[in-house]
Amino acid sequence: MYSLGELADRLDLAFSGDASRTIEGLASLESAGPGDITFFSERRYLPQLAATRAGVVILASDYVAQSPANCLISDSPYLTFARVSRLFDNSARPEPGIHPAATVAPGAQVDATASVGANAVVESGALVEAGAILGAGVYLGRETRVGENSCLHPQVVVYHDVHIGRDCVVHSHAVLGADGFGFAPGPEGWEKITQSGGVRIGDRVEIGACTTVDRGTLEHTVIDDGVIIDNQVQVAHNCRIGKNTAIAGCTGLAGSTIIGANCTLAGGVGVVGHLEICDNVHITGMTMVTRSITEPGSYSSGTPMGTTREWKRNAVRFSQLESLQQRLASLEKQR
Amino acid sequence: MYSLGELADRLDLAFSGDASRTIEGLASLESAGPGDITFFSERRYLPQLAATRAGVVILASDYVAQSPANCLISDSPYLTFARVSRLFDNSARPEPGIHPAATVAPGAQVDATASVGANAVVESGALVEAGAILGAGVYLGRETRVGENSCLHPQVVVYHDVHIGRDCVVHSHAVLGADGFGFAPGPEGWEKITQSGGVRIGDRVEIGACTTVDRGTLEHTVIDDGVIIDNQVQVAHNCRIGKNTAIAGCTGLAGSTIIGANCTLAGGVGVVGHLEICDNVHITGMTMVTRSITEPGSYSSGTPMGTTREWKRNAVRFSQLESLQQRLASLEKQR
Amino acid sequence: MYSLGELADRLDLAFSGDASRTIEGLASLESAGPGDITFFSERRYLPQLAATRAGVVILASDYVAQSPANCLISDSPYLTFARVSRLFDNSARPEPGIHPAATVAPGAQVDATASVGANAVVESGALVEAGAILGAGVYLGRETRVGENSCLHPQVVVYHDVHIGRDCVVHSHAVLGADGFGFAPGPEGWEKITQSGGVRIGDRVEIGACTTVDRGTLEHTVIDDGVIIDNQVQVAHNCRIGKNTAIAGCTGLAGSTIIGANCTLAGGVGVVGHLEICDNVHITGMTMVTRSITEPGSYSSGTPMGTTREWKRNAVRFSQLESLQQRLASLEKQR
Repeated sequence: MYSLGELADRLDLAFSGDASRTIEGLASLESAGPGDITFFSERRYLPQLAATRAGVVILASDYVAQSPANCLISDSPYLTFARVSRLFDNSARPEPGIHPAATVAPGAQVDATASVGANAVVESGALVEAGAILGAGVYLGRETRVGENSCLHPQVVVYHDVHIGRDCVVHSHAVLGADGFGFAPGPEGWEKITQSGGVRIGDRVEIGACTTVDRGTLEHTVIDDGVIIDNQVQVAHNCRIGKNTAIAGCTGLAGSTIIGANCTLAGGVGVVGHLEICDNVHITGMTMVTRSITEPGSYSSGTPMGTTREWKRNAVRFSQLESLQQRLASLEKQR
Repeated sequence: MYSLGELADRLDLAFSGDASRTIEGLASLESAGPGDITFFSERRYLPQLAATRAGVVILASDYVAQSPANCLISDSPYLTFARVSRLFDNSARPEPGIHPAATVAPGAQVDATASVGANAVVESGALVEAGAILGAGVYLGRETRVGENSCLHPQVVVYHDVHIGRDCVVHSHAVLGADGFGFAPGPEGWEKITQSGGVRIGDRVEIGACTTVDRGTLEHTVIDDGVIIDNQVQVAHNCRIGKNTAIAGCTGLAGSTIIGANCTLAGGVGVVGHLEICDNVHITGMTMVTRSITEPGSYSSGTPMGTTREWKRNAVRFSQLESLQQRLASLEKQR
Repeated sequence: MYSLGELADRLDLAFSGDASRTIEGLASLESAGPGDITFFSERRYLPQLAATRAGVVILASDYVAQSPANCLISDSPYLTFARVSRLFDNSARPEPGIHPAATVAPGAQVDATASVGANAVVESGALVEAGAILGAGVYLGRETRVGENSCLHPQVVVYHDVHIGRDCVVHSHAVLGADGFGFAPGPEGWEKITQSGGVRIGDRVEIGACTTVDRGTLEHTVIDDGVIIDNQVQVAHNCRIGKNTAIAGCTGLAGSTIIGANCTLAGGVGVVGHLEICDNVHITGMTMVTRSITEPGSYSSGTPMGTTREWKRNAVRFSQLESLQQRLASLEKQR
């Protein structure tokens, strides 16, 4: 619980209205009540701003006059809202210490301020740094590292030789460091190539639930500082993902993909292996990336949705595009 | 083991043939033997009906004369088959009680008729109602609820403030309530937005293996009664899924998607965020839903499969469609 | 650590250069140093071969003269590299025996040479054969089998009546034998069809992290010998996958799909249910397989990536293909 004045102080922002107004929680413009703080960041929501019952609205100074509520004034209302949300984060932090039902190998080092949950298993050579949290049932293989204040939610599995930096969050059922999909065709079938590289994850990385990041074949798979990855994403062996890149759910990166910094991949994207994507690239949802991208910008593939009836007709024509083009060329010659 | 007469009684259906015929199991028309019950529901399988060795066939009254076997007569043979299949379900129900290797926090309430498996972890404030089953290694966070007779298979993870109704089934490695993918761009990189909403799941919901349902940002993510969700599905924060909607495997819903009742989404569908899909919509496999749908019906996108050689030629032409259209328009002007 | 002479002996290959050269590890042509072995298998890497600092290069006899390093001579350099990689596999094999924190039911049989990790749960009727490894937290349901020397990594879940052959590898968070997505529409909503089949997995199968293989409805879901499946793949009920077929990440097979032997499905492929794909078929990435394939060869669907600006224009034209074709036909008539 904060007063408007306290929030303005903590975030070093100006405000207008009643400094003593007490804020108990966050809500949307539409559902906020007098005890809530909300934010306004897009002009098209002006009607909702005018009608809001919120106690405080975070907005740019230009809109103060249009707000019926007290204002917390910010050039970046959405960013300020993110910061306020963290002030109100009341999720319980587990007590430091190792749960009696955890299994920590003698050769592992767990900082006294770290927390290891029930049924967690920490193998020899693992290093868990100050303030780190291993949720219930987390598995840490040999020679792994979890940096300061990083949090692994219940049942994350970390294979051997995977290093995770500080201030990271890894959600449940993520698997870090499973074998890459490396096989050579032999006379009797596929022969496995030992995946002897590890995984190196930087600081402030977030990895979603059921996301998989495979270990490298010879060198490490690398995820740089500040990368955020959503749920159900597949990062294959030897990938390298640059700083602050964001990858949305259900995206799959094939082996040895290199992605630059500050990229955003929307959901369901697929990237063919051995490609390179430069910095500052945006890929729209469900795009199939089949070649390297060397220019910043936005890229897409796919076809638009229609009714199934319409779509079927057009889809048949897709299969005839080459002949359609030839018919057109033939007409052009006859002009 | 049931006799035909017993089955007819229990399901309140008519039958023809030998009431004392004993049925030991279920099988397909083609593989069924004299101790099996099977069903016939599509005319195109008439040859298989004529040749079946089944002890009993479930079918509509019109086809009784064409059945070489005893008949259980139903207007909805497939539905009757489903009901018979549940009568023959012999999967073992675990004993009520808390396994000695489970960890249940003092502040959690577990009904005496519920079953909590080995290595399950139940946090404070959790409520497990009568007849519910938590498989081995299930994790229930703080302030969660599992309704009567719901079954969470081994190693399901439920974060705090997630409520699951009655008669639900959640398969292994599903993750309910992980953080939504909410971040604001800041001067140094992504800043996390605390995801303070929960998840509310109705009654009779089934959720597949490795499926993820994220918690809401401010309000709850909501899955209504009777919804069925297959494996490897991603439901992002703030989604709302209406009653009896079915979602097949590998589908991804981006944040704040609202789906109506009685919809069916086939496998691999992707839905862009902040869209609304009305009731009674069918989406075919791998469709990219890029706009709201306001009319019931069937919708599709994508292109048909061809040999790679043919496809490559047509795909190149796709990239030239705009110029193709302009060339055509230019020819039309010259008429 | 092996000398070049020892490697040549073990693999029954010829070599050139210094038999006593000691090899400590594997690396790529570019990063290998004097203690490393590498391989050369594609002509386009001749410049890298010329510049390599590797201690030994595996290559075909034709290229020995162009190698600055000692050579291990093989007709299949990549396959030989795979075999060498396994000689250098130094991942720790856990000790045989059952960890004190594991829970093994009285009616389960675990061979004395098998290893069962901490918090693993093995139900009654399970059979774990010689040399098999169950990682920490693995769950084996009733009447399951794990064949000789198969390895289930931490937290794999195996439902009842699933058999896994010998020399298999299953990665963390894979779920084998969850219920197939089988429901009949009833008057009040979906009614579940008991999935009473199991899963049968052959020998030398590898299954990736977070991959799901559902149990069959009446008969078993079957994965044949030598099949390799990557991460995040969904195999629905009643599928049958033929010998030595390879399936890359994020692919989804709908129910009752039958795939032949020696097929390769690239990443993100979707296969509609009740289809049959013959032997020796290759499917390129993200293809939607909407019909059975009866001829060996390579198949594709999808559209090529462009800038979002270009793509939008072409995508609109896709929705007009039928009318475009009609306009073209009308012009042709006027010739």
